[in-house]
Amino acid sequence: MDKKNTLKIIKIGGNVIDDPTALSLFLDTFSSLEGSKILVHGGGKSATALAQKTGLEVQMVDGRRITDAATLELITMVYAGKINKTIVAQLQALDCNALGFTGADANTITSKKRPISTIDYGFVGDVEKVETSTLELLLNHGISPVFCALTHDQNGQLLNTNADTIASELAIAFAAKFEVELYYCFEKKGVLEDVNDESSVIEKITQTSYKELLDSQVIYEGMLPKLNNCFHALEHQVFKVCIGKPEMLLDPKAIFTTLTIQ
Amino acid sequence: MDKKNTLKIIKIGGNVIDDPTALSLFLDTFSSLEGSKILVHGGGKSATALAQKTGLEVQMVDGRRITDAATLELITMVYAGKINKTIVAQLQALDCNALGFTGADANTITSKKRPISTIDYGFVGDVEKVETSTLELLLNHGISPVFCALTHDQNGQLLNTNADTIASELAIAFAAKFEVELYYCFEKKGVLEDVNDESSVIEKITQTSYKELLDSQVIYEGMLPKLNNCFHALEHQVFKVCIGKPEMLLDPKAIFTTLTIQ
Repeated sequence: MDKKNTLKIIKIGGNVIDDPTALSLFLDTFSSLEGSKILVHGGGKSATALAQKTGLEVQMVDGRRITDAATLELITMVYAGKINKTIVAQLQALDCNALGFTGADANTITSKKRPISTIDYGFVGDVEKVETSTLELLLNHGISPVFCALTHDQNGQLLNTNADTIASELAIAFAAKFEVELYYCFEKKGVLEDVNDESSVIEKITQTSYKELLDSQVIYEGMLPKLNNCFHALEHQVFKVCIGKPEMLLDPKAIFTTLTIQ
Repeated sequence: MDKKNTLKIIKIGGNVIDDPTALSLFLDTFSSLEGSKILVHGGGKSATALAQKTGLEVQMVDGRRITDAATLELITMVYAGKINKTIVAQLQALDCNALGFTGADANTITSKKRPISTIDYGFVGDVEKVETSTLELLLNHGISPVFCALTHDQNGQLLNTNADTIASELAIAFAAKFEVELYYCFEKKGVLEDVNDESSVIEKITQTSYKELLDSQVIYEGMLPKLNNCFHALEHQVFKVCIGKPEMLLDPKAIFTTLTIQ
């Protein structure tokens, strides 16, 4: 069997997006990566800032944001408009041929509106299906897709979807055809043994050591959903998953966390 | 020589976008058109509405809107976010595989910031170059690109660009490879001899008869830029240009204006 080509899927969070210098540095790095690559970006603080400006109330239930119709319209403007197109235009200036996507574009990511149980999250979607054919065509043509955190239900409804999940679902969908490397870039150097000590990066986590870390309650609670996403991807043939600062993408001396099955 | 395939490029204006029923009817029509097709949409009134909500002042000079940095950010949110993604999601629900574009996406439309003469229009761009290769790949893959009225300068700057012009420049760029039909859909049945009489549609205008109409001052002033755009396209090998209501696209009995060289 031929060796598969590598596909890098890189997710950046709000802390990179909200800081123009950090974003510009990251985009420099992203544009210089060789081979096929996809960028996934979260929202950042501009959605909240615009909500305040327009007098839209942020509704939280049990610490989670509720996406009503007005909030969905607002994040569609901020995520798919402002942030996505700013990134695409900046990547073009760096000779990286980017093309912005929501999951509705080219029908790439279909999701299902989260059912109402005790909490009605509103227009929030859980990913059901990733359609790779158009993306593959574009990757082979040298295009780098740039995804924001929106999907659709195939009935005309856009849905707010977690960007970490979009990144891992894309990674899983491409795992049959590419050797997929999934990178979660955030503000810390990696998964830390001590959340207050940047030098305590756990450089390698396997499925076995992850269970041990969970049992000994070493891992900071906020990291759990991200790590579950990572292992979900690894269990579905994603080749490698890394968590750390954007530097990990290029700097051979960078310290970060690599997650593997074994 | 092989007969070229037909490519329909259809531009809709604010009056269609601002009316959900009209938009939905139009998208039904668009999705049922056979063959390759591109949609280009203008802005509509939501940009002005959002400007008012956020306290952004609309600056007009000699009756023309000035696009300062805050206005550019706002129209990027409304055009590329809200309107573009609403259209894409609705087309997907109609089984039309749409993909949203600004001119920055896949580097499709490069423009140059309009030079400051007596008026500084701000971040407004005049089209310099259309890059068709990615679009052609997508059209051949059954995708329908949906363009909003934004382009970029290849240096990271998005620019506000007239949607009529985007439609005609796309038409011209594809004219070598496709038999391009360019349709401008607006609120009237076509070019009218008497602007107050909907039954006075001029069904055919040639370059010669256009000059006669201009000389006799029959054509309503507001139509001049649109008609100049049309003849510019025809002079650059675009096969056919039509102006009228969306009905002209499907209804064989519809009355509208067709422009041809001869």
